[in-house]
Order: sequence, then C-alpha cells, then structure tokens
Amino acid sequence: MYHVDINCDLGESFGRFKLGEQEEILKYVTSANIACGFHSGDPTVMRETVKLAIDNGVKIGAHPGLPDLNGFGRREMAITPQEGYDMVVYQIGALQGFLATFKEEMQHVKPHGALYNMAAKDRALAEAIAQAVYDVSPSLILFGLANSELTRAGEKIGLRTAHEFFADRTYQADGSLTSRSQPDAMITDRVQSAAQVIKAVKEGKVLTQQQTEVALRAHTVCIHGDGEHALAFAQYLKETLENNQITLAAIGRRGE
Amino acid sequence: MYHVDINCDLGESFGRFKLGEQEEILKYVTSANIACGFHSGDPTVMRETVKLAIDNGVKIGAHPGLPDLNGFGRREMAITPQEGYDMVVYQIGALQGFLATFKEEMQHVKPHGALYNMAAKDRALAEAIAQAVYDVSPSLILFGLANSELTRAGEKIGLRTAHEFFADRTYQADGSLTSRSQPDAMITDRVQSAAQVIKAVKEGKVLTQQQTEVALRAHTVCIHGDGEHALAFAQYLKETLENNQITLAAIGRRGE
Amino acid sequence: MYHVDINCDLGESFGRFKLGEQEEILKYVTSANIACGFHSGDPTVMRETVKLAIDNGVKIGAHPGLPDLNGFGRREMAITPQEGYDMVVYQIGALQGFLATFKEEMQHVKPHGALYNMAAKDRALAEAIAQAVYDVSPSLILFGLANSELTRAGEKIGLRTAHEFFADRTYQADGSLTSRSQPDAMITDRVQSAAQVIKAVKEGKVLTQQQTEVALRAHTVCIHGDGEHALAFAQYLKETLENNQITLAAIGRRGE
Amino acid sequence: MYHVDINCDLGESFGRFKLGEQEEILKYVTSANIACGFHSGDPTVMRETVKLAIDNGVKIGAHPGLPDLNGFGRREMAITPQEGYDMVVYQIGALQGFLATFKEEMQHVKPHGALYNMAAKDRALAEAIAQAVYDVSPSLILFGLANSELTRAGEKIGLRTAHEFFADRTYQADGSLTSRSQPDAMITDRVQSAAQVIKAVKEGKVLTQQQTEVALRAHTVCIHGDGEHALAFAQYLKETLENNQITLAAIGRRGE
Repeated sequence: MYHVDINCDLGESFGRFKLGEQEEILKYVTSANIACGFHSGDPTVMRETVKLAIDNGVKIGAHPGLPDLNGFGRREMAITPQEGYDMVVYQIGALQGFLATFKEEMQHVKPHGALYNMAAKDRALAEAIAQAVYDVSPSLILFGLANSELTRAGEKIGLRTAHEFFADRTYQADGSLTSRSQPDAMITDRVQSAAQVIKAVKEGKVLTQQQTEVALRAHTVCIHGDGEHALAFAQYLKETLENNQITLAAIGRRGE
Repeated sequence: MYHVDINCDLGESFGRFKLGEQEEILKYVTSANIACGFHSGDPTVMRETVKLAIDNGVKIGAHPGLPDLNGFGRREMAITPQEGYDMVVYQIGALQGFLATFKEEMQHVKPHGALYNMAAKDRALAEAIAQAVYDVSPSLILFGLANSELTRAGEKIGLRTAHEFFADRTYQADGSLTSRSQPDAMITDRVQSAAQVIKAVKEGKVLTQQQTEVALRAHTVCIHGDGEHALAFAQYLKETLENNQITLAAIGRRGE
Repeated sequence: MYHVDINCDLGESFGRFKLGEQEEILKYVTSANIACGFHSGDPTVMRETVKLAIDNGVKIGAHPGLPDLNGFGRREMAITPQEGYDMVVYQIGALQGFLATFKEEMQHVKPHGALYNMAAKDRALAEAIAQAVYDVSPSLILFGLANSELTRAGEKIGLRTAHEFFADRTYQADGSLTSRSQPDAMITDRVQSAAQVIKAVKEGKVLTQQQTEVALRAHTVCIHGDGEHALAFAQYLKETLENNQITLAAIGRRGE
Repeated sequence: MYHVDINCDLGESFGRFKLGEQEEILKYVTSANIACGFHSGDPTVMRETVKLAIDNGVKIGAHPGLPDLNGFGRREMAITPQEGYDMVVYQIGALQGFLATFKEEMQHVKPHGALYNMAAKDRALAEAIAQAVYDVSPSLILFGLANSELTRAGEKIGLRTAHEFFADRTYQADGSLTSRSQPDAMITDRVQSAAQVIKAVKEGKVLTQQQTEVALRAHTVCIHGDGEHALAFAQYLKETLENNQITLAAIGRRGE
C-alpha cells in the first residue's frame, strides 16, 4: 500500500476581500497551508480557517509569506536570511496562537509564493527558514520543493521534511519545474496529471519534458483550492489515487 | 516584606524607525511588555527585544495593540469583541514564536494604548480579550488598569490578573485616572510619585485629587522607558521602594 | 425636465483580491467614486479603474477612506480633524496623479464608509474635510449625506456640494437614515425604491418611516455596483427615472 | 560662474516614529526630496515637511519608494515596469495634493532607495518611471544616478533630467559608484569630498579609484540630512563651493 499527502492553500481572504476557496476542497485534501497575515489572511480569517480545517479532520500547517499584501507575496524581495528567519518565526507563532485556542498541534510549515521559490534556490535563506522552523519546534514538518535547497536545509538540521510534488506542472530533465513562461509548463489534462502523481508516488520518478525520467520524491502533492475546475480535479485525483492503491494520509499521521 | 512588579513597554522600534528606549531601563524593571507588530515592533525588533529581556532577567509579556502603525495604536477604533479576541490571539502567538526559539515562557499580556483604554471601560471587549488570553494559555497573567472592566473580566474567567498602578498619574475619587486633558493629570515630582507607589503597595490606597482615599490594588507599576528623565526616575523608584521594604519582583515569580 | 446624478463606488479591488464589481454598471451611472488605497484600491487598480470610467463617459471622484484595509474603512477611528484633512488631501492627490496621465479633470470627492459617517455627524471633522477639498481645488464638488454636517461644511466654505440620497434606505422623521440595526432600514422592493428617488428629485421630499414628509435634497443618488441584483436594479432605476422625465447627468455637467 | 543644486531627503518620519533630520539642513540645500508614504512619510508628515521646505525657500520633489515601510524601501522587489509606473504616479500625485494646498509647483521626482538603484540598471523599469513622470507632468525634472538607465530614459522621453552626483561616495573607472561592500566606497574626509564635487561641477569629471578620470555630469549633489556630522558637512560644502565660484541654485530655477 502506498500513501501520499495532498495539501492545498487555505485562508487566503483578507477582511472584506474574499478569495474564492471552496470549503468542499477540504474533503479531498489531508493537509492545509494557512496564510498568516503577511501575504494574505487576517486574524479573523485565520481563526475561522483553523476551525474549518479541524472540523474537516485536515492537518494544519503555517504558510508564511513575504510582507507584501498588495503583491500576494509573489514578488521576490531582497530580504536577508535573518529577516527570513524572523518573519517565519513570527508567522508560525501567530498561527500557533489560534491552534492553541483549539488545543490543536501544528503539523507543518510551507513557505508561500516568492518565499518558497527563493528558499528553493538560495541556500542561506533556506537554512535560515529551516532553522526558524526547528527553533520554534523540532517536531514540525518542513514542506519544500522536491530536491531543493529548502528540503536539503530541512534534512540537514534534522527536521522531518516533505518533498512537494506538483500535479499540474511539468518537469525538466534536471528535476526542476518548467518555468511558467514556457508554453508547456502546465498540465491541463487531468488524466495525465493523475498519472504523473501515481508514477511519482509509486516509482519516485517523473517523466520530464525531455522524455527522460528523473528521480523525485513526492511526499505531498500540492493542489489548488480555487479556480473553476479545482474541486472536480481534487475529487478526481483522490478517487484515482485510491483506485491505484494509494491512500491519502496527512504527513504527520504516517510513520514513514 | 512587600513586593511589587515594575513593568515598562519595550521593542517599540519598527524597521529603520527607532524609538528611543534605553537598554539600561531593564536594570530597574521586572517585567517588559513587548510590542507585537500591530502598533509597533517588527519580527526582527521582536527577536532582539526578547533576547535583551532574557539577558537582563526581565520577565516577558505580550503588548498587543490595534492595527494602526501610523497612529501607534493610540487612536480608538470601533472593533468588535470578536476582532479584539482575534487580534490578541494573533499577537500573543507571534511573540510566543520568538519565546519558543529561546525556550522561554511568556509571563503576561498587557493590551497597548487605545486597546488598553477601551478594554478598561468596555465590558464586552474586556471579556473577549480575557477569553483570548485564557484560550491561548490559562497560565498567562493579564495586566489591566486597576479596578477596570479588564481586570474584572480576567478575574471572572479565572486568569491570574495584575492590577496596574501608574506612578506618574493622579487619581480621581472614583479610582479612575485623571484625564490627560486636565492640568493636574501628571505627577512630575519624583518624590510624590514614589510616595504614591509606596502607599498603594503597602496600604492598597491612593490619595485622590479630591483629597480622599480610595482603595486600589497595585500589583504592577508602569513606568516609561523613553523620555529624558525615564532612566533616572526608574533608578530612583527602585532604590526608594527597596529602602521602604518593598522588593521588586516579577509578578510571575511570586506566589501571591 | 429634472436631472439627477447616479453615483457608485468603483475600484475596490486590491492586488489579487478582487471585489465583485460589474463593469456593466457603468452604463447606468454618471459618477464613479474611486477608492484611493487606504480602505481599498491600489495604484494599479486605480489606473485601470480611471481608464474604465473614462472609456464609459462616467465622471470621476475620489473616494478617500480611513487607513484600515483590513476593516475596509468601515470601522470608526478616533482621528483628529487635522489627520482627516491630511488623509483626504493625500488620497485626492494620489487619484489626481492618475487623472493627470489621462488629461482628465476630477469632478468630486466623496468620503468612504466610516469617514463618511463620522463626517456626517462631527462638525470639526466635516469642516476639516471640506477645507481639504477646497484647498486642493475649489472647483471640486463635495458629496455628502443630505442635510449632514459634511454638506453644511461644504456649503459654508464655498464648495459646490451635492446632497446624496440613498435609493435603498428608509428615512426617519428628522431626515436621518434609519439605522441598519433596525429591521426596516433597507428597501428591497425596487418599485418602492425608484418611487422614493423620483419623489426626492421632483419634490425634494421623502416619506419617512413615521409616515411624515421631510424636506431632503437629492442631487446625487448612491447605488451599489456589487451584489446579485445590483445591475438589474441600476438598469431599472435608470429606465424608470427617464420614463418620469428625470434625466441622468453627472453633477459636474450640469449648471444648477 | 558655475551652478549646482544640492538635494537631500526630507520627511522620513512616520507617525510617532521620528527619523532624526535636522531642520537646519534646509539652509544648505536647494532641493528637497519628500517621502510619499510608501517607504516612509505619512500624510501629516508630508504636509508639515512641504510647509517646512516652502518656508525655507527650498524647491520640492517627490521621493517615491517601494511599498516596504518595514524595510524603508531599501530591499529590492521584483515589481513589473507597469507596477513601477503605477506606484510612481500614485506617489507623485499624493505629494502634489499637499503642494496644491500651498499653491506650490513640484520641481522634480527622485526615486528612493532600491527603486532608485533598480531604475539605474533596469531599462524597462527606468523607462516606465520616466513615462510616469512625463505623463503626470512633462515639466517635472527627473533626478537619477549620473549616466544611468534612469537618466537615459528621462532624456529619451524628453524630460529635463538631472544627473545626480554623490559627494561622499567614490567612483569606479566605468563611472559607477564603488559598491558599499568595498572598504573604500565612502569618502569620510570632507576636504576630499568637496574637492570631488568641485571637479565634477567645473570639469564634468571625477577621479576614479583606478586613478583615471571619467566624464560625469553633476547637475545635483546628494547630501544626507541625518547623522552626526551631516549639518556641519552641509555647511562646509556650501561655503566651499561658493568660495570656488559655484553658486547653489535649485535645478528648476536655472535655465541650463
């Protein structure tokens, strides 16, 4: 029997500004990454989202981002590793405040947007973020791009680390994601998308755009909670994985 | 032998914007209220301030404020009790993140500025804040204006509650602070100021502007860390209290 | 022949956070109030919205709000009149920057949300806002609640002032709006709503909840651009007014 | 007779957070760059600073920055040229609001911090900023690093452009500033500093760290308003320039 975690971003609204998540997505995922107020999310949204995840039996992680609400944390910023450390500690703590009110443990931390991308490539930043997670609590699981500086930094410091796989993105021969600027970056066919996930989970491999295979762990698969077809795809993926002897289970619930 | 806690606000800088605290003030206080990013403070300032307090053996509390950096959290805002609850949970959590990295426990929570004043008078907001503190951790001590809605709310929910006394403010016959709009609101003479603290600690009474005495507990005394004479006054107060058989001790260190 | 202006709020998105306005609403209004970045709106949204209004021949006004993005400018804040003056000058100027790039003149200024409500009741704040508008440009038209401190302040300083009437709200015998906390505050029947507007425009009167008539000018009528029925109502109102010899015309286009 | 403009940054406080400018610096400069609320400055500070500059006969320019108050606009952000355009239009407009209340014309625009540095190297961003300035008003003067993409973009679009020279920085053989990471980046000797300015103004040349001369225009010289020796240096520079037949005059006052 195989296992995999499915994660999605949650709690991305801010005040009266609602981002179109569908609560129903929680039926098809096992881990939720909750925004912590820097790129989106506010205290009220965070409390409501934590409750929603708990009510649906979904494990909770912090989704810290860059302090850029206007840019939704998607614009790279030249922060120092120390600043990265500090903003990750702050945001994990803020979310833990809400978890404490529900007597719930935090499962994981997954940096958001540009912070995620920067930490995948920049070793000093990656190590600062891994250190921040470790210092707040060594039992937290660090989510990062598979085979990236961030997962390496997590493993090095002794954190349990989850390599993240993307269901709807294609990969290059070196294991990196095809840049979104390329026409073939996205997989829009759900059959192909699910097949890619199944192969990664069962074989630890992905077929690249160069038609080569590259080794890639897939501890957790990222899906999106918004968009027209998000819900239908989430349901399809869950069913297809289960039909292929892959059980959905939150990372923190397994004993790998 | 008598005891009293002396607290002061700390960590009020923001990025390149420095507020003129003097590190030396930490020699004369026993508890520090650290800003949590809403009215001042940023993640880097918070980490540095937590370290400074620990290095000086000063107990740490969260100093949550209204989300108004431009107004330094001093402008009242028409927030709902639920919003008050949420922003207090968020800010306590954020500061606890940094305390966790130092393996240090948080001692107390003291609302800042307009939030403090609103919670002194508005029962629903006071109860929401007390609930927030209790829900994050029932072992936290709630600091509030002596004889206010906030201390009542704290006591009602079962929190250990510290009544706060002001060394440099005069009091009215009903036990309230003289409004700052009145000419005699402030005590500028340090001898009078210390005498008022000693009377409150030893007798639980304050001499009001109406020349009557009113019962007032003084578990913790607020002094300021900035301003020209702050340091000299802090030193004078500590020495004067000790010469009057009053030991300075953080609230959380005593077994009242 | 009668004239009336119909205004609606526009440009309320912020970054990736979209608020559900319908571009088509611009066919049925003559003036648009564009958010200026304090309660919503960002520079990119402002530029796009200004262009949209110009392309639709709709006159443009600034819609300055309180600095509270999280609360959408709807929470009252204890600002000083001077702070009110300063934040209105800033926001008018910011929007004028974009108008300048299109070589377009600004028609009016209408405070938003809590700032609008506070300025309706608080004379000192109302006068500060009227002064701000006048100082930036005496040819700007000030929009305010009919018979409020804000319209009085505008008239006093010599600004052209537009009394604003609400199509979907009921009125009290003293000419004030029925509080939203009352069950009969809103008019949901579009026939009744249009009839109320027609009466106000033609007779300068409104039938109150007390079944009395009160004198009320209606230079401009506020409608909403979001919500399920907004578009249908806007279209219905325009047609009904025109069928009753009331022409829709932007305030700034008329020579009252 | 030679002329040169001396500019300094002004209005960098934010709410209760004061940055230590000295009002007296205005005696020794001819142009002031006023922060517009994104990296520092708030509406009240802006009004007060505009008044201060006018009272001292100093010409005023907008000093638009990145939306990063915590980082003081000094951290590079991956904004698009369109975002750069929009945030510059917004900030120029906001400051013009205050100038309008004083019936004063804006003289120039000088990007701040990381935006200045990015615009010096990135042609697309430089052209977007130059376009923004031109679109708001073609009579504005664009300040940029001498021989940079920003000054080139300004000249190309037809703006009057001021090449900025740094009194306290050393230059490389290619005309670029020595990186601050180098030990010899700063000039601390005021005699050497003034001599470098005089040579640049009179000969249009600078002696580089490689002991070669490179052609460099110096229409305006940047000095700092804060720091221990800022005032003394400003006074020394003014006197030394005047003793060398170089008159201080705001760019906008000359007819070059």
